[in-house]
Amino acid sequence: MKRLLKTRTAAFVVAAVSAATLAGCATPPTASPVAETPAVEEITATPVSSANGVHEYKLNNGLKIIVKEDHRAPVVVSQIWYKVGSSYEYGGITGASHVLEHMMFKGTTQYGPNEFSRIIAANGGRENAFTGQDYTAYFQQLEKSRLAISFELEADRMQNLLLNPEEIKKEVLVVMEERRMRTEDKPRSLTYEQFKATAFVTSPYHNPIIGWMDDLDNLTIDDLQQWYQHWYAPNNATLVVAGDVDPQQVVELAKKHFGPVKSRPVPKVKPQREIEQRGLRRITVKTPAQLPFLIMGYKTPVINTAETDWEPYAIDMLAGVLDGGESARFTRNLVRGQQIAASVGAGYDLHSRLGGMLVISGTPSKDVGIEELEKAIRVEIDRFKTELVTQDELDRIKAQVLAAKVYEKDSIFYQAMQIGTLETVGLDWRLMDEYMDRLKAVTPEQIRAVANKYLSEDQLTVAVLEPQAMTSTPPAAHGGQHAH
Amino acid sequence: MKRLLKTRTAAFVVAAVSAATLAGCATPPTASPVAETPAVEEITATPVSSANGVHEYKLNNGLKIIVKEDHRAPVVVSQIWYKVGSSYEYGGITGASHVLEHMMFKGTTQYGPNEFSRIIAANGGRENAFTGQDYTAYFQQLEKSRLAISFELEADRMQNLLLNPEEIKKEVLVVMEERRMRTEDKPRSLTYEQFKATAFVTSPYHNPIIGWMDDLDNLTIDDLQQWYQHWYAPNNATLVVAGDVDPQQVVELAKKHFGPVKSRPVPKVKPQREIEQRGLRRITVKTPAQLPFLIMGYKTPVINTAETDWEPYAIDMLAGVLDGGESARFTRNLVRGQQIAASVGAGYDLHSRLGGMLVISGTPSKDVGIEELEKAIRVEIDRFKTELVTQDELDRIKAQVLAAKVYEKDSIFYQAMQIGTLETVGLDWRLMDEYMDRLKAVTPEQIRAVANKYLSEDQLTVAVLEPQAMTSTPPAAHGGQHAH
Repeated sequence: MKRLLKTRTAAFVVAAVSAATLAGCATPPTASPVAETPAVEEITATPVSSANGVHEYKLNNGLKIIVKEDHRAPVVVSQIWYKVGSSYEYGGITGASHVLEHMMFKGTTQYGPNEFSRIIAANGGRENAFTGQDYTAYFQQLEKSRLAISFELEADRMQNLLLNPEEIKKEVLVVMEERRMRTEDKPRSLTYEQFKATAFVTSPYHNPIIGWMDDLDNLTIDDLQQWYQHWYAPNNATLVVAGDVDPQQVVELAKKHFGPVKSRPVPKVKPQREIEQRGLRRITVKTPAQLPFLIMGYKTPVINTAETDWEPYAIDMLAGVLDGGESARFTRNLVRGQQIAASVGAGYDLHSRLGGMLVISGTPSKDVGIEELEKAIRVEIDRFKTELVTQDELDRIKAQVLAAKVYEKDSIFYQAMQIGTLETVGLDWRLMDEYMDRLKAVTPEQIRAVANKYLSEDQLTVAVLEPQAMTSTPPAAHGGQHAH
Repeated sequence: MKRLLKTRTAAFVVAAVSAATLAGCATPPTASPVAETPAVEEITATPVSSANGVHEYKLNNGLKIIVKEDHRAPVVVSQIWYKVGSSYEYGGITGASHVLEHMMFKGTTQYGPNEFSRIIAANGGRENAFTGQDYTAYFQQLEKSRLAISFELEADRMQNLLLNPEEIKKEVLVVMEERRMRTEDKPRSLTYEQFKATAFVTSPYHNPIIGWMDDLDNLTIDDLQQWYQHWYAPNNATLVVAGDVDPQQVVELAKKHFGPVKSRPVPKVKPQREIEQRGLRRITVKTPAQLPFLIMGYKTPVINTAETDWEPYAIDMLAGVLDGGESARFTRNLVRGQQIAASVGAGYDLHSRLGGMLVISGTPSKDVGIEELEKAIRVEIDRFKTELVTQDELDRIKAQVLAAKVYEKDSIFYQAMQIGTLETVGLDWRLMDEYMDRLKAVTPEQIRAVANKYLSEDQLTVAVLEPQAMTSTPPAAHGGQHAH
C-alpha cells in the first residue's frame, strides 16, 4: 500500500553513508569499550516456529533470527534490528540513537573507520542504516555466497565499537548540519516537528528522531557509550535474512558469528503512555516559506495499543478512502472538485510501538485561505461519522492494497523490512500475512464507528505554517561553523 | 513582595509529613544502599565570603554552608538544599525527585521509618520538605541549642537512606493519590499543567513537579536508588542556617556531622534550552468544573538566562504594575472598572534555573465570555508597548516590595529560603540584597522595552479551561484502588 510505505518512510532518518564518510579519518583504534571474551558455554539455536517460508530461531544469547526463503534471484538481504530509536530517548539526549547509528560506521577494534562500508562495496554489496522512532536497523544486500561477510562485520560492531571523541565531535556536526538542512530550513518539516511535539505531551514521540539541536550540541561520548552498552545486546536485536538461502545454513553461520556475543541485561522501557487529550490544540509556526501548510492530527490507537483489534484496520481503511490514489476522496473532492487544495494527504501507521495519530496535511490552492482548507477537510472527516462508506470505495482500496502487496513481495528487502519492523515494535511478524485479510474484513459500519470514536475535536491537534517573507540571510550564516 | 511569594509557592509540591506517616510500618532495616565509611583525610572548612551578616564556607567534600546571623529570638532554622528537582527529570521518571523526598522520611540504617520526624518533634522542633522544579529541600526549625540534632539526622539520611521496596510501593500510592487530589481533580491545576507542557517543548519545565501519573505508576526502586546516588552528594548540596547562632560554631558542627560524607561525581546537567517559539499556541482543556479559566503565558528570560541584566527586573516591575495589589491595573481596570474579570493575576519568577514566562491567569465575571477577558488582558498588555508607566505606579510597586521585604526580614525561615533558592538555581545569594536596588533602578522606558521585546503574539501560549458538566461519578471510583 503506497500510502503506508510513504508514512513509514517519512518516519525514517536515513543516515546516508556518503555523509558518514565525510568525517572519516585515520585515527587509529585506541581501546575497545565493550570487548567481550568469547563465551565458553555451548552456543545453541532453538527453532521457534516456521510458517509460509519464514523460519524463526533464537540463539541462547537471546538473538532472534528470522529467515525468509526467496529463491528468485541469487541474492541475500541481511538486516539487524535493534530495539532502540528516538522513542527510547528522553529530553537531554534526544538524537542519541541516530548519532550512534552514524558512529557504527566509524570503526571497531577490528576494523578502521569506514572499513565496514568499503568491505561491503568491495564485495559488490549495498548497505544502509535507518533510525526510526522505534528501531535502529542496519542492512546489507549481497550475492548469496557472501552472507558471512555481513554477519562477521555486524557481529563485530555489535560488541567491539570504538567511540573516538574526535570522530564523535565531527559526526555530531555532520548530524547538526543534516538537521539544519532537513528540518530547520524545511518549513514543512519544522512545522511537522512542532506539531508532533504539541500533540504528544508524555509520549516519547514528542521528540524528533534526529534530536533537538541543543541536545545534539551537548551530546557526549559518555551518552553514546551508555546508549551502545544499554541497547546493542544480542538479546535486544533481531537478525532478519531474506533471499536465496538455506535457513539451516543461515542459522549455523549466525551461531558462528553472533553466538559468541554475550547477552546483557537491557533497561526496562517505561510505558510513557500519552495523557488523555481534553480539547483542541492549535499552534502557528511562522517561518520563511513560499506556501502555507496545514497539519491536522487525531489521536488514534495502533495495533499495539488498541483495545478492539479491528479498529486500527478500520482507521487504515478510512485513511485509504481519503487518500488511496487519484479517485480517493481528497483528490476527487478537494483537489479536482472544489479546487480548495493544491495537495492534501492522509497518513496513519498502525504498526508503531506506541499510540499514534491519523495525520492529514495539505496546502491550499492559490488564493484559498488555510481556514477554508481546514473547513473542507473537517467536512470530509465528518462525513464518515454519519454516511457509510460505499462498498465500491472499500473494494477499490482493497484492490490497491493487494496490488501494493504483490509489488512488495517482489522486493526481498521490503519483506525483510516488514518482518524487522513488526518484530521490533513488539508485534508478531505473522501480522504481515494477516494484514490483507484484516483489511478485507473491515465493514463500512466499523469505519463509521472509528470516525465517531476517534476523529473528535477533543483529540485534534492543528498546526498552521504561516509563511514569512523569505529573508536574504545567506545559507552560509547557518552552515559556516562546520567542516564541510 | 506578595506576588513573588505567591508565584514561588505555586511551584512547590509540599510533602506533608502527615501524608508520609500514612505509609509508616515496622519493616526492619535490611541493608544500607550507599553507606560510606568515614573519610580518613582531614576535614576542612574554607571561608568563602562574608557580607551583611551572611557567612559562606565550603567543606572539603564540597558541601557549601551559608550562615545568616539573626539574634532576635533563640531559634535556628536549618535547611539543606539539593540541586535536583523536576527539571532534572525526564520523560519516564518524572516525579522521582518528589517521591524520593517522601522516602527521605522512611528510615536509614541508623533510624527507623518516620524516626526523623518523631525526633524533631520530641525536641520541640518543626520540619518540612519541599520539592520544586529546581531543588529539593529539607527544613527544620529548633531551639538554638538543638541544631546538632538536625545536622546529625540530615547527614545520616544524606548517606544512609534505606529504600525499602514495600515502603516505596506504598509511598508511590500516596503520591498518586496526592496527584489525583491536587491535579486531576483540580480543573485549574490540570489546565495549568497542560498549559506548561504546551508552552515548554524542550525545556524540562514541560513536566509537572509531581510527575505524570503513568511515570509514577512505573517508578521503580532502581530509579529512586539511582536518583539518590546521583544527586544526594554533599558537593551537590547547600546547608543554610539562619538564626541565633555563632557562624564558627555552626561550621564546626557541620564539619563534625557532614564532614565525613564522601563527595561523589554528580551528573552533568544538559542545558535543554527551550526552542524558539514561532507563533501563538492555544489549547482547550475540557474537564468538569464550575467556572471557566484562562491562562496566558509569554516566554521571558530570567536572571539566569537574560542577555541584558536589567530585563528580568523590568519584567518583574511590569508584573507588579498589573498585579501588585488593589490599586494595580488588573484589579482597577478589569475587576472593579469594566467588571470583566472575577479575578485576574500575573506571576513571574525571575529566579528560576531556566527560562520562564510571564503568566497571566483569570476567571471572567459572570456572563462575560472567556474571549472578552482575553481581549481585555491583551489591551492591558499592549498598553505597555506604547504608553509609559507613570512614576506614581512605579513608586507604588517599589513601596510594596519594600514593605514585603521588611516583612520577609522578620522571618528567618524566609531569609534562609531565599538564600537556598538563589544558591540552588545557580545564582549568588547576594542578589537577595541587590533585589530592591535593581527594582528601584527600573525605568518606564525599560518596561516599555521588555513589553515590546517579549510580550508578542509569537511568544504567547493560551490555555482555556472549558467547564464540562460535573459528572456524578463518585470520588470512590478514582481513589478506590488505594490503601486509604
